[in-house]
Amino acid sequence: MREQLFQKLEQSYDDMVEIRRYLHMNPEVSFKETKTAAYIADFYKQLGVEVRTGVGGNGVVARVKGAKPGKTVALRADFDALPIQDQKDTPYASTVPGVMHACGHDGHTATLLQLAKAMNEMREDLTGEYVFIHQHAEELAPGGAIAMIEDGCLEGVDVIFGTHLWSLFDSGVIYYAPGPIMAAADRFNITIQGAGGHGASPHQTKDAIVIGSQLVMNLQQVVSRRVDPIESAVLSVGSFVAENAFNVIADQAVLEGTVRTFTNDVRNLMEQEIKRVAEGTALTHDCQITVNYYRGYPAVINHEKETNYLKTIAESIPNLQGVEEMQPQMGGEDFAYYLEKVPGTFFFTGAKPTDAYPHHHPRFDIDEKAMIAAAKTLCAAAIEYQN
Amino acid sequence: MREQLFQKLEQSYDDMVEIRRYLHMNPEVSFKETKTAAYIADFYKQLGVEVRTGVGGNGVVARVKGAKPGKTVALRADFDALPIQDQKDTPYASTVPGVMHACGHDGHTATLLQLAKAMNEMREDLTGEYVFIHQHAEELAPGGAIAMIEDGCLEGVDVIFGTHLWSLFDSGVIYYAPGPIMAAADRFNITIQGAGGHGASPHQTKDAIVIGSQLVMNLQQVVSRRVDPIESAVLSVGSFVAENAFNVIADQAVLEGTVRTFTNDVRNLMEQEIKRVAEGTALTHDCQITVNYYRGYPAVINHEKETNYLKTIAESIPNLQGVEEMQPQMGGEDFAYYLEKVPGTFFFTGAKPTDAYPHHHPRFDIDEKAMIAAAKTLCAAAIEYQN
Amino acid sequence: MREQLFQKLEQSYDDMVEIRRYLHMNPEVSFKETKTAAYIADFYKQLGVEVRTGVGGNGVVARVKGAKPGKTVALRADFDALPIQDQKDTPYASTVPGVMHACGHDGHTATLLQLAKAMNEMREDLTGEYVFIHQHAEELAPGGAIAMIEDGCLEGVDVIFGTHLWSLFDSGVIYYAPGPIMAAADRFNITIQGAGGHGASPHQTKDAIVIGSQLVMNLQQVVSRRVDPIESAVLSVGSFVAENAFNVIADQAVLEGTVRTFTNDVRNLMEQEIKRVAEGTALTHDCQITVNYYRGYPAVINHEKETNYLKTIAESIPNLQGVEEMQPQMGGEDFAYYLEKVPGTFFFTGAKPTDAYPHHHPRFDIDEKAMIAAAKTLCAAAIEYQN
Amino acid sequence: MREQLFQKLEQSYDDMVEIRRYLHMNPEVSFKETKTAAYIADFYKQLGVEVRTGVGGNGVVARVKGAKPGKTVALRADFDALPIQDQKDTPYASTVPGVMHACGHDGHTATLLQLAKAMNEMREDLTGEYVFIHQHAEELAPGGAIAMIEDGCLEGVDVIFGTHLWSLFDSGVIYYAPGPIMAAADRFNITIQGAGGHGASPHQTKDAIVIGSQLVMNLQQVVSRRVDPIESAVLSVGSFVAENAFNVIADQAVLEGTVRTFTNDVRNLMEQEIKRVAEGTALTHDCQITVNYYRGYPAVINHEKETNYLKTIAESIPNLQGVEEMQPQMGGEDFAYYLEKVPGTFFFTGAKPTDAYPHHHPRFDIDEKAMIAAAKTLCAAAIEYQN
Repeated sequence: MREQLFQKLEQSYDDMVEIRRYLHMNPEVSFKETKTAAYIADFYKQLGVEVRTGVGGNGVVARVKGAKPGKTVALRADFDALPIQDQKDTPYASTVPGVMHACGHDGHTATLLQLAKAMNEMREDLTGEYVFIHQHAEELAPGGAIAMIEDGCLEGVDVIFGTHLWSLFDSGVIYYAPGPIMAAADRFNITIQGAGGHGASPHQTKDAIVIGSQLVMNLQQVVSRRVDPIESAVLSVGSFVAENAFNVIADQAVLEGTVRTFTNDVRNLMEQEIKRVAEGTALTHDCQITVNYYRGYPAVINHEKETNYLKTIAESIPNLQGVEEMQPQMGGEDFAYYLEKVPGTFFFTGAKPTDAYPHHHPRFDIDEKAMIAAAKTLCAAAIEYQN
Repeated sequence: MREQLFQKLEQSYDDMVEIRRYLHMNPEVSFKETKTAAYIADFYKQLGVEVRTGVGGNGVVARVKGAKPGKTVALRADFDALPIQDQKDTPYASTVPGVMHACGHDGHTATLLQLAKAMNEMREDLTGEYVFIHQHAEELAPGGAIAMIEDGCLEGVDVIFGTHLWSLFDSGVIYYAPGPIMAAADRFNITIQGAGGHGASPHQTKDAIVIGSQLVMNLQQVVSRRVDPIESAVLSVGSFVAENAFNVIADQAVLEGTVRTFTNDVRNLMEQEIKRVAEGTALTHDCQITVNYYRGYPAVINHEKETNYLKTIAESIPNLQGVEEMQPQMGGEDFAYYLEKVPGTFFFTGAKPTDAYPHHHPRFDIDEKAMIAAAKTLCAAAIEYQN
Repeated sequence: MREQLFQKLEQSYDDMVEIRRYLHMNPEVSFKETKTAAYIADFYKQLGVEVRTGVGGNGVVARVKGAKPGKTVALRADFDALPIQDQKDTPYASTVPGVMHACGHDGHTATLLQLAKAMNEMREDLTGEYVFIHQHAEELAPGGAIAMIEDGCLEGVDVIFGTHLWSLFDSGVIYYAPGPIMAAADRFNITIQGAGGHGASPHQTKDAIVIGSQLVMNLQQVVSRRVDPIESAVLSVGSFVAENAFNVIADQAVLEGTVRTFTNDVRNLMEQEIKRVAEGTALTHDCQITVNYYRGYPAVINHEKETNYLKTIAESIPNLQGVEEMQPQMGGEDFAYYLEKVPGTFFFTGAKPTDAYPHHHPRFDIDEKAMIAAAKTLCAAAIEYQN
Repeated sequence: MREQLFQKLEQSYDDMVEIRRYLHMNPEVSFKETKTAAYIADFYKQLGVEVRTGVGGNGVVARVKGAKPGKTVALRADFDALPIQDQKDTPYASTVPGVMHACGHDGHTATLLQLAKAMNEMREDLTGEYVFIHQHAEELAPGGAIAMIEDGCLEGVDVIFGTHLWSLFDSGVIYYAPGPIMAAADRFNITIQGAGGHGASPHQTKDAIVIGSQLVMNLQQVVSRRVDPIESAVLSVGSFVAENAFNVIADQAVLEGTVRTFTNDVRNLMEQEIKRVAEGTALTHDCQITVNYYRGYPAVINHEKETNYLKTIAESIPNLQGVEEMQPQMGGEDFAYYLEKVPGTFFFTGAKPTDAYPHHHPRFDIDEKAMIAAAKTLCAAAIEYQN
């Protein structure tokens, strides 16, 4: 049966590419992806598959039941795009100004749709039930996953699998990691309220730029001194704005940044230390510093058993380009929430094209062939989980 | 004769106020002050006084010759306004959106015009020659003084006097200072070219915000460690801009700031040390830091003899509110250039109104009565210089 | 046969404790441990076991051949002590002022000696050959391992095992880690040569304390910004000395510190970045900064296959308190050198006493019972490697 | 009469040199200068001049009354030496190991003794009374001046003059300054109590070296940002000690330093800001920082009238090398206390030898000829003050 499914997937490649390119040309940003959701729902309706729309927002969930009872396996693909201007020269470049599928979610969707079609065609031979979760809004906190879970997308689900096509990894290779695979991604902003004045009279002011600069320096020690060196943590101030005439002293500086961690302990430590350093720096300068710390997605922690299972399954698939263990990535993913509810694993599928650009780059693209590797691995993981 | 002149000045007060308010309602920014220049020239033409326009740009120079030969004394007033939106509620608030006489140059002009009128009326009794220098563009480097000097405004001049009405000093008091009275005011901008990237991957970047923050901290030591503590120096970074999404690492940060000094040695030291610190910081981070250092006006260095003379003269004027020595100000003034060519002194005339705001503030105003104190002091300094 | 050996080991416990306590009372510091070496050699001579002394210094190597030919397995224990004053109240506290077995090497030696005795007694039943490496000078770079290897202690050896009794881990539990288990431990010293002078005249000096402080701050960014957050690295400045009268400006500051890493890439990066930051800081201050970077032991990188083997073996030993995977430790060990030559693994044996103190603490002690767990695991790992 | 006194002074030059060299060979440190005090007292006793010893400690005060009543003028010379090893090759180098007249107090004493002798010889012609204050312990806070004043040395005194021979100023030139001439010299020490630990485990510690370094950096901003740039202030950390093994993390760092200011406002600001910065830095790192701030001598503030008087007098003395206004010095002097009680002025007498070294240098020496210039100026200032 697995071979039949693989054959169907290979035969569906042209359709997969067509879907992916259609979506690529018609991207919609997070929480606004209504046409994409309708497109997905139509696909299932045309197949005659049971489909629920408006799940936790724009989410779409389809279910295919095998003839024999068994476990319920969920497969997830996200479908939102990014507010980036496509700069590619390809005929399938985005037609929407300032919006682009620069993270491969179009490929995820195309892969999952064709996989669902193939499994639906084989449903008489299948054991168990298969839930195809098409998730909106992965790119923008709070993300679509929480709401879809609250809206029941995981009901009865025994295990979940998901993958990310990755433009910087070798095409067609499956990358797994037990334990943490993607980081908790938090955001903070810090407002330094000093007291402005004339650039020639510093003593009458509280110089927000000097205070902000010292704060940035002090924050370096959080990673270098406060965090256990065996643990991973990133603290990056991405934005520092105190825009003034050259001959004034800034009354305010606004900093924004991100924190990435893999464990709750380190995450809590980072938030606590950022706040402490801000408080101490404020006292040093007798000024006000306000810290807002926003928790984003938690770390994606793969379940060990399901990850080892996925690895073994992937190694059994003929003609894959390889199966490799990977280092955790510091990026975030709201797949984390599914894994807090049910066992499962999230893996990467290498999709490096000839001209590779990083994700979120205006010239980002994928090797579409990788969709077949992703589809086969999800397929095998799903159906063999019944054993 | 001095008494007669003082009487005339006192009688001219209403006209002085009228001129000042007319100018206040019709401000023009530096280098664009053509209507103001025409207004001034017309004033002299109506008096029948010899006047030269277009001096070094929009400058206007009038000359009044006394009956007896003697020394040539120049008096200078500037007449440009600032790109600031007037926020006062007075009937004479600026009528030009975004432009305002927020530094008192309108008062300087009104004072000098009425003084010229009075002296012209008394020219038969006067010894020597009097040059009334109406200077454009004091607020914006390179300023109007250099061009006016090159265009001959100081020809034959033996001595020069000038004053600044000052909204934070007690009204009607004359403030003098031998030696440095206003600072050299330089400007710099610094571009830090790091290498941007994802906020989660600092090791693949050169973080322009961390580099810029360290540079700001390093620059503090220039004043605290490199400058002789007996000397004065200010180094203020007024602007720090690296505006990005929170989850990226900045590839560039742009800093702008000002340097204030009173001697050439310290000025040279500051420029040299800023460049050295930038170079060292660039090496520390293996990145590029570009420093542009623009020299503004040099320090206003009052000549000692003429300053003592001015002090003695001021002390002899009846009914002034006081004559006091003042601390040097860290602000800049292109009166400096005149004093590099001829002897003279620049003094402050206190003009604090009931509701005092600092210069360049959107609610800035002066006590107009102070114009009389300024006019009398300039007048006495000019005519008694013949003795 | 394994059971017979285990029984012998259990019966030897009192002797093991006696040896451990004798060594504990008679500690010798690294490279001076001649009496300890003689004690070990005597032990083997009394058993009639072939023993070589003076191996690479004070090292001692004994060999026991089984009746049947097979693989050659090395087991290693270190035997040097530390220059620390024992502050314990136990009857077996150190009798040598200022010297103490504060790291458990006495226990390692007692364990290996009794294991060798037991295996020697069973040699007729054994397959293969067993090399008992008693290493001197683990605590002090360059360590004893390199010289012993050069002197042939690994000749013919197919695999090596070693363990560390650990006072902070649960007693009797075996802790393994595939890949890096202990860090590369490097040392650096940095001399800042400024220019001294009177505390009241900073401008005539180059303030070595300000320069040194800035350098310490700059070095924080090496870990926080230059190192891949997935990797581990520590940079600690442990000593900062610029001792002067309060009213002078320091001409010199001397910093010393340590760097810990797990991979060669990160290690090279750390050395390179420390040197770059020092160079940049020197340029910033127009002074001289000299960096000496001394490489200590490399990271201990356990071979994956042998580590998995050790784990499986340990799990098969009855009555152990547990077998657990551990996080890598940032401390250093010259066991690293053996693993660069032959396959093998280094594991930790928990030995937490009731009153637990960290290693190198003046009140350090171990739960002696843990020696049995260590001995059994080394024993089983050695003899079953023949299969 | 002035000419006769000047002649006597010139004739006394050899005796002056003899006294100076005797003292130079027999230096005594502050508060231990009993033999020097006895030497001075003997000198006066041999002249038959009224002398009081043990004034406020080792102080000696002699009084010479003129025949006619008039004002009481005090002249002060200090006589303690420094704990410095003399490294000169001259025959009159110090004979006391580790003690040296490295600040010229020997010259001050010789000058004042010979001046007192000359004036005593002329007492029949003198008007008024002359108090010769020989002060101990100028070099070591709290200094000798306070105790001598409390013990009555200024009783009845109308004015006081004092001078400092200065090895870096042109020999024979008199240097005056109205207002501040020497700075308030304060001392502070700061103890940072972090939490030590192993160099490989920063997260379990509070790194006192990082905290201390950050504190040093933060303190730079006190001068660069908090102090009015027109004012002078110095903050130097002269000592930073955290001496440890390279592979530990320091639990403590001790900083010592000095603060120099000219006004009480700036002095108070400095103390307050140092404490604030320490408090803020402690909060940033959740550690303890203790600041002890010890006020030393206040600034020497010359009275304007007496300074102008001194200048005029000096200009009237024939054959001086010059009379010049000087910049304030950042060094301290307890002459400050006399000027808080009575009018007066402190001036510098240039005494640069061929091979000039700064004060407190082991090879420090003076041009002895300068003692004549100092004596004449003190003499003229004293006797002409009666007019």
